[in-house]
Amino acid sequence: MISDKMKNLVANSSTIRAMFEEGKRLAAIHGEENVFDFSLGNPNVVPPDSVKEAILEIVNEENPNVLHGYMNNSGYEDVRNTIATFLNEKHQLDLNANNIVMTCGAAGGLNIILKTILNPEDEVIVFAPFFGEYRNYVSNFDGKIVVVPPDTTTFQPNMEALKAALTSRTKAVIINSPNNPTGVIYSDSTLKQLASILEEAQGTFGTSIYLISDEPYREIAYDNATVPYALHYYNNTFIGYSYSKSLSLPGERIGYIVVPNEMADFDDVMSALNVANRILGFVNAPSLFQKVIGKCIESEVDVCIYERNRDLLYNHLTSIGFECIKPEGAFYLFPKTLIEDDKAFCETAKQFNLLLVPGSAFGCPGYTRLAYCISYEQIERSLPAFTKLAEYYKNN
Amino acid sequence: MISDKMKNLVANSSTIRAMFEEGKRLAAIHGEENVFDFSLGNPNVVPPDSVKEAILEIVNEENPNVLHGYMNNSGYEDVRNTIATFLNEKHQLDLNANNIVMTCGAAGGLNIILKTILNPEDEVIVFAPFFGEYRNYVSNFDGKIVVVPPDTTTFQPNMEALKAALTSRTKAVIINSPNNPTGVIYSDSTLKQLASILEEAQGTFGTSIYLISDEPYREIAYDNATVPYALHYYNNTFIGYSYSKSLSLPGERIGYIVVPNEMADFDDVMSALNVANRILGFVNAPSLFQKVIGKCIESEVDVCIYERNRDLLYNHLTSIGFECIKPEGAFYLFPKTLIEDDKAFCETAKQFNLLLVPGSAFGCPGYTRLAYCISYEQIERSLPAFTKLAEYYKNN
Repeated sequence: MISDKMKNLVANSSTIRAMFEEGKRLAAIHGEENVFDFSLGNPNVVPPDSVKEAILEIVNEENPNVLHGYMNNSGYEDVRNTIATFLNEKHQLDLNANNIVMTCGAAGGLNIILKTILNPEDEVIVFAPFFGEYRNYVSNFDGKIVVVPPDTTTFQPNMEALKAALTSRTKAVIINSPNNPTGVIYSDSTLKQLASILEEAQGTFGTSIYLISDEPYREIAYDNATVPYALHYYNNTFIGYSYSKSLSLPGERIGYIVVPNEMADFDDVMSALNVANRILGFVNAPSLFQKVIGKCIESEVDVCIYERNRDLLYNHLTSIGFECIKPEGAFYLFPKTLIEDDKAFCETAKQFNLLLVPGSAFGCPGYTRLAYCISYEQIERSLPAFTKLAEYYKNN
Repeated sequence: MISDKMKNLVANSSTIRAMFEEGKRLAAIHGEENVFDFSLGNPNVVPPDSVKEAILEIVNEENPNVLHGYMNNSGYEDVRNTIATFLNEKHQLDLNANNIVMTCGAAGGLNIILKTILNPEDEVIVFAPFFGEYRNYVSNFDGKIVVVPPDTTTFQPNMEALKAALTSRTKAVIINSPNNPTGVIYSDSTLKQLASILEEAQGTFGTSIYLISDEPYREIAYDNATVPYALHYYNNTFIGYSYSKSLSLPGERIGYIVVPNEMADFDDVMSALNVANRILGFVNAPSLFQKVIGKCIESEVDVCIYERNRDLLYNHLTSIGFECIKPEGAFYLFPKTLIEDDKAFCETAKQFNLLLVPGSAFGCPGYTRLAYCISYEQIERSLPAFTKLAEYYKNN
C-alpha cells in the first residue's frame, strides 16, 4: 500500500505517461518524422565540446579516490570558488565558496531550500503560469502553495494580486525567469516592485520572506536581452541554478544554490542546506560533474539554435491567427488556445499529430505550452499541421 | 528563519563538524600521519580500472545528447536490464528492467522508498545498532522510528524484541547487512525468522509490512562469507543497493532499488517510486554513471585490502583487552568501550589522537565504531595509541 499523498500523485503521473504512450502510438502509425512532440523540455542542442574535453582531462589526471569520493555536503571548495568568482565578474557581486552549495540540478536545489525553510502550513507564493513541479516540491514539506493569477497581457507577475496574497504565513515566493512556460523575462521594473512589496510585507508581518529565483533558463536569452539578477534587488534571495539547459546536461543532475551574506540567519541557513542535502539523500552533487563545471565555467550551448526555432514557430503561429507573447528566453511558446477549453484543444491537436501541453498544467487555462527544443526540420514539418489545426477551428 | 525540524538537525550536525575540525586541529599540531581518524566511512581502496576505461569509452562513443540527457525517471532501460540479468545469475532470480529503479546512491533510494510508503505516524522498525541517518530519512516523511534494542552477544537482530515492537502502525523494517557499525552479516537463520515473524504480523494486523534491505556493503564480505539475499525470504522486500563501496564511487551517487513482482501492489509501488524520484528532485540517477555501471557490472574493488586492515586492527585490539565481535564484512569494528560512558571514552581517545564515534550515535551506548577504510600504514601507526588508551583505563 503506497502512501495517501502518493496515490494522488501516481494518478496524475499517469496522464504524463499517457501523453508519452500516445506519442509512441502515433509514431508507429505515421512514422516518427510525422509526429510533432512539443510536450517535453528535453534540450536538443548538443553540449559544448569543452564538456567532453573536461571529462577526459579530469579522468586522466585526477586521483580517482578524490575524484569519485565524498566531499563536504556543499561540494568541492575549488569548484564553489570558481563559480563564485565567475558570478562576481558577471554580476558585480562579492561572493566566495561559502555562498555556494552544489546541488543535484535545480530540482534538488529547490527541494533542499524548501526543506530548510518550511514549517507545515507555511505558504509559498507562485505566479501563474508556473512550472507545475513547484506544487509537488512545496507539498513534500507540507507547505501550502498560493497561486497568484496571471497578467495575460505581459505575463509579468501580477503585483496587485501579489499584495493580496501575502499573509503572516508567507514563507517564500518562487520566481522563474526566463519563464517556463511563457519564455518571458521578468524585467528590472518587476524585480524592483517585487522587492519593495516583499520588504514591506516583512515589515508588516515581522517575518522573513524568502525569494527563490529558479534560473535553469538564465543563459537561454535572445535578442541580447539581459536577465536581471535577483540578488541585486532583495537580500533574502536564494538563486537556484542548473546546468541542465546552459550546458545541455539534464541527465547529470548538476547545479548550485547561491545564498548572499545579507540573508537573515545566513549561518543557520547554510548549515541547514548542507544537512538537507545530506538527509534527503542527495548527500552531495555528483562529484565528477562538479569538477566538469569547474573547467567549463565559461562554456554555453549555442543559443542561436533555439532562437532560430523560436522565430520559425512564432512567426508561423502568429501568421495563422494564434495570439502569443514573443518569448525573450527559454525554449517555450505559450499561445492562447483557439477555444477556451485548453485540454479539449490539446486533445484535438493530437488528430493532427501535434502533442502539446494544456496551460492548466501551469495554472493558466486557455493557453498551451509548446517546447521548441526539437530539430528545426521537425518544426518545419509541423507547420502545416498547425495550419490545419487553425483551419479546423475556423470551420467548426 | 530555518524550519523547526531543521533547527534540531543543525544543532546535531555541528557535533559531526566539531569532530572534523578537531581532526584538522590535531593534524596541525601533531602532523597528519600522527592523527588517526577512524570516524569516516569514506572508502580508501581505489575504484577498479574498469571504471576509468568505461568513462573514456562511453564519452568517446555515445551521442552526448542521449548520454547526458533525460531518460525515464527509473533510469536507462539497457542498464536496468544489465543489472537484472546480473542479479538473476548471481542469486537465481527472475528479474527484468521493470523490477529496477536507478537511484542517487542508497541514500536516495531509501528516501524514495520511504516517500512511497509512509503516511505520517507510520512506524519504521530498526535494529540497534543502526546507521543513524535512518532516523532522519524516516523523519523526512513524518514517520516514527522504533528502535529494537541490540543483542550484544551476536549483534544479530533481537527477534523477541522485534515481536514486541510490531504494531498495526508498523509500515516497514530496515535491515543493513553486512552491518554498519558492527560488520556482522545477518544469517540465513535470522532472515528466516524475520520473514516468518513479519508474515505472521501481516496476518495478525491485516497490513502490508515492507522489509527494506539496505545493502551498500554487500560485496565487502570476508572469509568467503555469503550474504543471504532478502528477496529469497520475504515477498514485500525492497533491496536498496549502492556502488559507493563496491566500486568506491561514493561521490558519484549511483545505486538502485530492486522490487520483486511478488510485492503487494507492485504496479502502484513502481509508479510511486518513479514519481518520488522525480518530485524529491533526484529526477533520475546521474546519467553517465548509469552507463558506467552497465559496463562495470562484473567489477569490484579489491576487498582483500579491507580484510588485511580488519585483521591488523581486530587482532591488536583484542590482544590488548578490547571485547569485539569479529566483523565478517563492511569496514567497521564495533568494540565495547573500556568504560560505560562511550561519549566520555571517545573524548579521552582524542588525547591519544584517536578519532572514534560513540556507539550512542548508532543507538547502542557502551560501544564505539572504528572505520578502518584508511591505509594499512596509518592503522599500523595507530596501534601504540590504542595500547596507551587501554593502559590509561587500567591505571585510572
